Amino acid sequence: MSLPLIAITMGDPAGIGPEITVKVLSRIDIYKTCRPLVIGAVNVLADAMRFTHRALQINVIDSPQEGQYSFGTIDVIDMNNIDIEKLEYGKVSALCGKAAGEYIAKAIELAMAGLVDAVATNPINKESFVLGGWGKMYPGHTEMFADLTKTERYSMMLQHENFRVVHVSTHVSLVEACRRVKKDRVLDTIRIANAACKAIGIDQPKVGVAGLNPHAGDGELFGREDIDEIQPAVLAAREEGIDASGPIPADTIFSRAKGGWYDIVVAMYHDQGHIPLKTTGFVWDESSKSWESISGVNVTLGLPIIRTSVDHGTAFGKAGKGTARVDSLYEAIYMATRFAVTRAKTQGLSAK
Amino acid sequence: MSLPLIAITMGDPAGIGPEITVKVLSRIDIYKTCRPLVIGAVNVLADAMRFTHRALQINVIDSPQEGQYSFGTIDVIDMNNIDIEKLEYGKVSALCGKAAGEYIAKAIELAMAGLVDAVATNPINKESFVLGGWGKMYPGHTEMFADLTKTERYSMMLQHENFRVVHVSTHVSLVEACRRVKKDRVLDTIRIANAACKAIGIDQPKVGVAGLNPHAGDGELFGREDIDEIQPAVLAAREEGIDASGPIPADTIFSRAKGGWYDIVVAMYHDQGHIPLKTTGFVWDESSKSWESISGVNVTLGLPIIRTSVDHGTAFGKAGKGTARVDSLYEAIYMATRFAVTRAKTQGLSAK
Repeated sequence: MSLPLIAITMGDPAGIGPEITVKVLSRIDIYKTCRPLVIGAVNVLADAMRFTHRALQINVIDSPQEGQYSFGTIDVIDMNNIDIEKLEYGKVSALCGKAAGEYIAKAIELAMAGLVDAVATNPINKESFVLGGWGKMYPGHTEMFADLTKTERYSMMLQHENFRVVHVSTHVSLVEACRRVKKDRVLDTIRIANAACKAIGIDQPKVGVAGLNPHAGDGELFGREDIDEIQPAVLAAREEGIDASGPIPADTIFSRAKGGWYDIVVAMYHDQGHIPLKTTGFVWDESSKSWESISGVNVTLGLPIIRTSVDHGTAFGKAGKGTARVDSLYEAIYMATRFAVTRAKTQGLSAK
Repeated sequence: MSLPLIAITMGDPAGIGPEITVKVLSRIDIYKTCRPLVIGAVNVLADAMRFTHRALQINVIDSPQEGQYSFGTIDVIDMNNIDIEKLEYGKVSALCGKAAGEYIAKAIELAMAGLVDAVATNPINKESFVLGGWGKMYPGHTEMFADLTKTERYSMMLQHENFRVVHVSTHVSLVEACRRVKKDRVLDTIRIANAACKAIGIDQPKVGVAGLNPHAGDGELFGREDIDEIQPAVLAAREEGIDASGPIPADTIFSRAKGGWYDIVVAMYHDQGHIPLKTTGFVWDESSKSWESISGVNVTLGLPIIRTSVDHGTAFGKAGKGTARVDSLYEAIYMATRFAVTRAKTQGLSAK
């Protein structure tokens, strides 16, 4: 079996995406586990090599089959959509927003056609994305994947090291998130969490389900959602043969997950899952005044294709300086590879 | 100046309190920074020495002035309220709940009289506390401190290493917690956070204020509390000369706090502050199937006396076995000492 072919979208050209792409492809270990293919703009990548002092060859190709996929050369499908004279790092622009959307659209097209095994995405800037004309069609990155792959039910999984979280809701107000904690929705998310673990090769996933209220409600003291909605969802999941437990108080479930009690945690709202993951994965170094580590991967579950993403933004304040960290992109490519390998084994699906 | 005199309540006799008290007082470093005094039951402490294989002397005294406070001897005010024949470790009982409340009442009495400098509390069992008759008067441990010290406004601070959090609300449902995010209440909590840092000797505290909604609302996309309530509270605090910033997205504020950006974080609800602290402070060791670390301290702010507490429960499942961890009690005594030293310096208050 060939190594999985992973399309890497370059992200917003004015952000750190081009830089971290060049840096991550300067690591030989990437080429030992996958065949990376960049969807982006060659002139922007060349500029990133200049200011990061990397000397890699660029091989411009029209379709994935033409790539060399050997360390030292970056294979690129060049969308040729950036006038480099007009590119300003760290600035919102229609030019860059439009371009970033085009990389995504191309990557999805290739994945849907089975020409790449997975997509790992660099960050886009939401304002530029809107200015570039994509906002009329899609509220954001993930919604674009959902729409172009005709997916209705999808979910976000965050992973850092062996620590995984899936959310019952994400980008809604906390009050609305509380409203969405309903038995059916929680049960659906438990099923998605279970399936996601199986998709990376965990045979009997242990699913920990977090409570919504402090101490998971402490009996009936603080709110009824834990008893009325979450507990019945856990019981229903167990009846389906899923090894689910909960509701577990949210302030200790993540220590347990890190300690191996659960393969994945079902979080009831965005910050419940994001806080522990980022508190663990993002490390600030006070002496150098910079992030020592920005790691963690975002996986969109429920799509017919494999899509992982960095879990940070475009970092406009850092763009063009050569100091951005590659941890998260590295992990995103690694996770995409792991999903692709499992899918190839279980379903025989892989790009040539 | 003498070392601060710290009263340690023994906690529920059927829990791990007596055991961790004996263990922590087997550490010579405790005696280099404070004068520890146990308020408890001598026969229970003696039993804890038996099963933890510690051989310390016990010096029963009637008032704090009589203590020796030297390593090797535990000074105890014996409330003599446990029939050891009836004590069952790990069991809920009226006997133990009643006794645990008596240790607290005595410690508060001594602190209010200025006979001890601070109180560090071991955990109580809420069910036993109710059965023991205290539940009619107080919903819990902290409320008992508030009532007996005639305090109306108080707040909980959690600390682990250099990482501190104060909460706008704690033991209420998440829906109710969202309702309580109001400008005045947030401003009050910012003031409490600022004062708490000053009370441990930080001259110009940097106060980070977390957002309520994902991405602190992301403009006006997800809920309006961040703009309508939190931002005005931060501005008002700045006008009072407090170095407050926010609202900061809750999923990165804790990484920043750990990295030194803030001395303290104002969290909008219980789990927002408890999740990052416990995810960092509680470490499960898979090989030995036990908690390698359970650290973190709870400080009640706003009382006229100093009170710190372990941030774990009675751990009935572990009680009587000799395997409980002392990290959190050690930190609670250390924090109580630090508050007492600062108060002595700034206000000239200390026990003889």
